[in-house]
Amino acid sequence: MVKVGIVGGTGYTGVELLRLLVKHPEVTLTAVTSRADAGVLVSEMFPNLRGHLDLPFKAPDLALLSSCDVVFFATPNGVAMKMVPALLAAGVKVIDLAADFRIKDVALWSEWYGMPHACPELIDEAVYGLPEINRDAIRKARLIANPGCYPTATTLGFLPLIEAGLADADHLIADVKSGVSGAGRKAHVAQLLCEVSESMKAYAVPGHRHQPEISQTLSDQAGKPVGLTFVPHLTPMVRGIHATLYTTVIDRSVDLQALYEQRYAGEHFVDILPAGAHPETRSVKGSNVCRIAIHRPQNSDVVVVLSVIDNLVKGAAGQAIHNMNIMLGLDEAEGIDHVALLP
Amino acid sequence: MVKVGIVGGTGYTGVELLRLLVKHPEVTLTAVTSRADAGVLVSEMFPNLRGHLDLPFKAPDLALLSSCDVVFFATPNGVAMKMVPALLAAGVKVIDLAADFRIKDVALWSEWYGMPHACPELIDEAVYGLPEINRDAIRKARLIANPGCYPTATTLGFLPLIEAGLADADHLIADVKSGVSGAGRKAHVAQLLCEVSESMKAYAVPGHRHQPEISQTLSDQAGKPVGLTFVPHLTPMVRGIHATLYTTVIDRSVDLQALYEQRYAGEHFVDILPAGAHPETRSVKGSNVCRIAIHRPQNSDVVVVLSVIDNLVKGAAGQAIHNMNIMLGLDEAEGIDHVALLP
Amino acid sequence: MVKVGIVGGTGYTGVELLRLLVKHPEVTLTAVTSRADAGVLVSEMFPNLRGHLDLPFKAPDLALLSSCDVVFFATPNGVAMKMVPALLAAGVKVIDLAADFRIKDVALWSEWYGMPHACPELIDEAVYGLPEINRDAIRKARLIANPGCYPTATTLGFLPLIEAGLADADHLIADVKSGVSGAGRKAHVAQLLCEVSESMKAYAVPGHRHQPEISQTLSDQAGKPVGLTFVPHLTPMVRGIHATLYTTVIDRSVDLQALYEQRYAGEHFVDILPAGAHPETRSVKGSNVCRIAIHRPQNSDVVVVLSVIDNLVKGAAGQAIHNMNIMLGLDEAEGIDHVALLP
Amino acid sequence: MVKVGIVGGTGYTGVELLRLLVKHPEVTLTAVTSRADAGVLVSEMFPNLRGHLDLPFKAPDLALLSSCDVVFFATPNGVAMKMVPALLAAGVKVIDLAADFRIKDVALWSEWYGMPHACPELIDEAVYGLPEINRDAIRKARLIANPGCYPTATTLGFLPLIEAGLADADHLIADVKSGVSGAGRKAHVAQLLCEVSESMKAYAVPGHRHQPEISQTLSDQAGKPVGLTFVPHLTPMVRGIHATLYTTVIDRSVDLQALYEQRYAGEHFVDILPAGAHPETRSVKGSNVCRIAIHRPQNSDVVVVLSVIDNLVKGAAGQAIHNMNIMLGLDEAEGIDHVALLP
Repeated sequence: MVKVGIVGGTGYTGVELLRLLVKHPEVTLTAVTSRADAGVLVSEMFPNLRGHLDLPFKAPDLALLSSCDVVFFATPNGVAMKMVPALLAAGVKVIDLAADFRIKDVALWSEWYGMPHACPELIDEAVYGLPEINRDAIRKARLIANPGCYPTATTLGFLPLIEAGLADADHLIADVKSGVSGAGRKAHVAQLLCEVSESMKAYAVPGHRHQPEISQTLSDQAGKPVGLTFVPHLTPMVRGIHATLYTTVIDRSVDLQALYEQRYAGEHFVDILPAGAHPETRSVKGSNVCRIAIHRPQNSDVVVVLSVIDNLVKGAAGQAIHNMNIMLGLDEAEGIDHVALLP
Repeated sequence: MVKVGIVGGTGYTGVELLRLLVKHPEVTLTAVTSRADAGVLVSEMFPNLRGHLDLPFKAPDLALLSSCDVVFFATPNGVAMKMVPALLAAGVKVIDLAADFRIKDVALWSEWYGMPHACPELIDEAVYGLPEINRDAIRKARLIANPGCYPTATTLGFLPLIEAGLADADHLIADVKSGVSGAGRKAHVAQLLCEVSESMKAYAVPGHRHQPEISQTLSDQAGKPVGLTFVPHLTPMVRGIHATLYTTVIDRSVDLQALYEQRYAGEHFVDILPAGAHPETRSVKGSNVCRIAIHRPQNSDVVVVLSVIDNLVKGAAGQAIHNMNIMLGLDEAEGIDHVALLP
Repeated sequence: MVKVGIVGGTGYTGVELLRLLVKHPEVTLTAVTSRADAGVLVSEMFPNLRGHLDLPFKAPDLALLSSCDVVFFATPNGVAMKMVPALLAAGVKVIDLAADFRIKDVALWSEWYGMPHACPELIDEAVYGLPEINRDAIRKARLIANPGCYPTATTLGFLPLIEAGLADADHLIADVKSGVSGAGRKAHVAQLLCEVSESMKAYAVPGHRHQPEISQTLSDQAGKPVGLTFVPHLTPMVRGIHATLYTTVIDRSVDLQALYEQRYAGEHFVDILPAGAHPETRSVKGSNVCRIAIHRPQNSDVVVVLSVIDNLVKGAAGQAIHNMNIMLGLDEAEGIDHVALLP
Repeated sequence: MVKVGIVGGTGYTGVELLRLLVKHPEVTLTAVTSRADAGVLVSEMFPNLRGHLDLPFKAPDLALLSSCDVVFFATPNGVAMKMVPALLAAGVKVIDLAADFRIKDVALWSEWYGMPHACPELIDEAVYGLPEINRDAIRKARLIANPGCYPTATTLGFLPLIEAGLADADHLIADVKSGVSGAGRKAHVAQLLCEVSESMKAYAVPGHRHQPEISQTLSDQAGKPVGLTFVPHLTPMVRGIHATLYTTVIDRSVDLQALYEQRYAGEHFVDILPAGAHPETRSVKGSNVCRIAIHRPQNSDVVVVLSVIDNLVKGAAGQAIHNMNIMLGLDEAEGIDHVALLP
C-alpha cells in the first residue's frame, strides 16, 4: 500500500482528493494536514466522508509528511515551494496541485504570482503533469506540477491542431466557462450564492494567471510562441469547465475528426465525441474524463473545438492521482475510473 | 457473475442503476430495455456511460429478460405487474422500483394508482425492500417492492420512535422537500428549469401516493393505524430529499439520541449524526446513506427529526442494489459504498 | 417630496430599498450611508442602479441624517438603537429593518441578541410594523420595528386561525424554507454558492431569534402564550420564503377558506389563493405580496397553511416602505406595487 | 390610452410583455389570446399577475384584434405572417417578436425557418426594430420585426467597431451564453431542470438561425458581407445573455472606450461601463438595458467586447415596447425603465 499525505485538506481540491483516495485500492491515507483546523476530524468538516475516513487534521509537520511515499499539496500558491525541497530530500514524491512549479520562466512566475520563488532550482526538474503530453517524464519524476483547470481543458482541446501545425497559432482564442468551485472555498463576498447564481460574467479579461501557463505548453508543442487570447467566465454551477476554442485552420482539407481521434486513441481519459456532437459538462461531473468535439461551421476556415472537464477531477484531484498512478507504475485508471454523476 | 437486466433504462432511476451496476464487481449487465429507443446505444442517450457500457437499448423481450438472474424494473407504475409473473416463473428474481407491489391492500392501491392490479396474487409474497426493517425476508424473496423515495427518508426517520411506542402516533407530521429528479425524466412544462428553479412550493397537499405507503409501514411497526400528515415540496435542486419530521414524545425522559444510535448500530447505510447536528442533502449526493439528526427544541415535548437521502440512490437505485446484494448473499455494500460528491 | 435616508446601504436589504425608492414617486433619496465604503458611488457597488442613482455612500453622520424626513436602518442588529434617540429628537421618523425594537421584553431581547439594549425606554413606543395587524398604530408612529422575514410569512399565515381561537395554540408548527439572501451579504464560507446550492438543510433547530418574535405576536393575538415549534431551512435559491404551517383545528365545521378571505379582504398585499392551490415563491419574486393557501388534507383536523413572500420585499424593504407610506398618509401601494418577475 | 393586444400570451415572452404592459401608464390591455387556453384567466396560468390583470385568454379572433391600436405577436415563428396583412389593412400597428419579418432575403428565410413565407410582399416594409440603428424608420413604421435575443446583444456589441470600419470583418467571433428561458416554455425533455442545471454546453454550432440575422445587420452597417462565427451556449440560469465578442482591430491607436461612449451617448438603454469593467447579466435582470465593456487584453490587436442583456426584456418584450413607444411618439422609456432585480 502507498502511504499518502495531503497538505491543505480543507479546500475543494482537498476534499476531492479525499473522496477519491479513500476508495483507491492501493492507497493508505497517512496524514491530512491543516494548520488552522488541527485536531478536528476531517469528516466533521466534510460529512460526506463519515464512515470512510477517521483521521483528524494534523499540523503540517515535516516528520509526519516524510513518512509518506507521496504527498499532495492542495494549498494556496506559494506554500508547496517552501516544503518541497525537504520532502524530496527525504525521498518523498510530491504532486503540487497549486501553481508553484508550473511556469518554467521564474521571472514570469514571480510577475504573475506576486512573490519571489522559494526554490527556483527545482523548477526545471518539475514535470508538468499532463499525462497526454508528458507521460514518460511523469513516470520518472520526483516532483509534479499538476496543471491548472483552465489549462487542462484548453490545452487538450488545442493540442492536436498545434502539434500538427494546422492552426493559425498567432490568433488562438479560448473562451472558457468555469463553475464556481474553481474559485475555492474561501470567505469572499464575490462567491456567495446570491452574488453568482443566476448570473454570468467574464472576469480577468486584461490578464489571468492561466494564460501564460497555457501559452507555455502550446508554444512548446508549436515550437514557437503562440498568440493566445484567454477569457475566463464565471458560470452559475458548482463544477465543470467548458472551453470553446477558436482558431483558423491553415488547410481545410484535413480530416480534423480523424486527427483528434488518432491523437487520443490510447488515452483512457480523453474521449473524442462523434462528429457533430456537443459535450455537456454534466457528462463529466465527478469523473476524470475530458470530452472533446470538433466543428468547422459552414465549412469555413474557422475551427471550433468544444472541450469539457470537471475542474475538480481532470482539472485537479483526478489528474493528480492519475499522475501518482503513473509515477508508481500502477494501472493508470486505478481509483479514478468513476462514471459521472448524471443527472 | 450475476446476469442483470434493466427494464426501462431511459429515466433517471434507470441511468442511476446503470451508473452503479457498470462498476459493481459481481454484475454483468445483460440487457437494458426501452421499447421507444430500441437500437440506440445507451451511452448515446447518457454520455456519462461512454467507455463504461457498450450495450444498445433492446425491446423488452421476455426471452431476453428470462436469461437474467435478476431483473430491475425502472418503469412507470403499472408496467412491472404485467411481466413479473412470467419472470418469476422463469426463475428470475425481480426488484420493482415502481409502486406496483408496495401497497398490501389491493383496493387501496387501485384507488391511488388509478388502475386494477394485474397480479394481485403476488402482492402478499412481495417483500417491501427496506433492509433496515425486512432484511430477513429480503434474503429469501423472489420479488422486492423497492420503497419510494419519500417513504425511505420518512420511515427511517420515524422508525425508532414508532417501534419504541414513544410517539403520539395519531399526529405525525412529515414536511418533506425533494429535488426535481424525483419527478422523473418526462417532457412536462412543470419541471422545466424556468418553472422550478429559484422557487419553492408544496404540492399534492390534499393527497400524495406516498402517504398510504408510509402509513402502511409505520402502522405495521406501531401495531395500530397511525395518523400521518404528509406534505411534499418541490425544491430547486436536482437530487436530494430532506424530511423534517414532527411528533409529540410521550416520555420526555428517554434519551432519543441513544435510542436512534442503538436502533441503527449495525446498519451500514444509516448514519446517526451527533446531537445538535443538521444534515445537508449534499452530504449524501450520489451515496446510499441516510443521515439522521434528532432534536427536541427548547426541551419541549415536540421531537424534530431531520432525515436526508439522495432520492435516486438510497431512495431508488442504490437501495434496489442493496436489496439485490442481500438476496444474493453478497456483501451488502458491494458496488454501492460510494462517497458523496461534495461540493 | 419626502427626504429619505438609508443607513447601511451595502447589504441585500439596502440595495432592495434603493431599487424600490429610486422609483418611488414621492421620495427623494438624500443620503445612503456606509462607514466602510464612504466615497464610493452606490452604483459602482450595485451596477443595477447605474442611471438611476448618482449618490456616493457617505459616512453615517447625524447632521446629514437629521435633515431627512424618514430614515431607514438596514444595518446589523444593535446599530439602530444607538442612533434612534437622537434622530427622533430631531423630528425624524425611523424605520428599523433590523431587530432592535421588535421584542417588547428587553431581557428576552438581550438573551437572544447577546447585548444590552441601548435605549430600552423607546421599546414600548416602537410599533411592530405589520400593517395587517397594526395599521392604526403605524399611522401615528415615530419609530417602526419592521418585522423579520420569517415572522412576516409565518404570522400572516397563522393569524386568522389564532384570532378566531380555532387553533390548538399549544402545538403550532412552522416549517419554513428561506432563500439564501436571508443570510445577508457577508463574507462567510457557509453561504458560498458551492456550499448551499444543490442542497437543503434545516438550521438553528434548537433555537432561532425569530421564534420569540413570532411567539410574541401570536400570543398577543391569542390572548395567551402560544407553543410554537419553528424550524428554518436554507433553500438553494436567492429569494423567497415558503412557510408550511401546521396546527390542529378545534372545530372542523368552520369554513377556513372564507375565514381567510374575509380576514384579508381589504389588504392590498395579502392574496388568498383559491381552495386547493399551492403558492410558489416565484409568484412573489420582487413583489410585496404574501400569497396564502389553506388546506385540511383528507378532512382530518390538521390544518396546513402555505404562505409565501419575497424575503427582501414583503419580508424587509417592501414592507418597510409600506410602513413609510402609511406613516406619511400616502397611498399604501405607492412605489411597491410591482408585478413579480416570472420566470 | 393605447389599446394593445397580445397574440400568444402563454410563453415567457408573453408573460414578460404582460408584466411590463399592465403597469405601462399609456396602455390598456384589450386582448390576450391563446387558442389552446381560451377562457382560462391569464392570472391563473401566471399567478404573478393576480391583482394586476383580470382578462381571460381569448381565441385569436381578427375582429377582436382589429379593435386594437397595436398588436404584439409573441407566437412561434410562422404565425404572425398569416395574420399581419389583415391587421395592417385594418389600420393596426404590428410588432412581431418572432422571426417572420427579420430576414430580408426571403429565400434565405425559408431555408432557415423551413417553410414558405406567407406574405413576402411585406418583408421589405417591415422595419428591423433595433432602435439604436433604426429609430427614424421605426417612428414611421406599421410593422416591426423585433430583433432576436442573441442578435440584440451581439449586434450592439459589434456595432461601433463595424460602423467605424475598425474590425477585421471577415473574422468576427461571437461566443454567446444564454439562460434557459430563451428556449421557451415548451414541454421538452432537453429543458428540464435536471437536464440543464449544473451544466454548460454549446449547441447548434454547425448553424443557428440567429447567425444570418446578425450577419445581415452587421453586413448592412459594414457595407459589405461580414464573416461571422456564432456559437450559442446554454447556461444554467433563467434569464440573461452574455455575449463575448472577438475581432482583430485594424488600428490599435483608436480609443475604443471613447468610440463606444460616443456612439451610444444618447441612448437610454445602452450603458457603456468604465474601462476595465466586466458586466454581469444579473445587473440587467428584469431591465431593458444592454451593458457593454470593451477590452484589448495585453495591448494586442484582439478586441474583446462583453455585452449583456436580459433576453426576455432588451432581447424581447422590453425592446418591443420600446419600439411601440417610438412608433406612438411616447417617451421612449415609458413603462420599461425598471431597475434590475439584484440579487
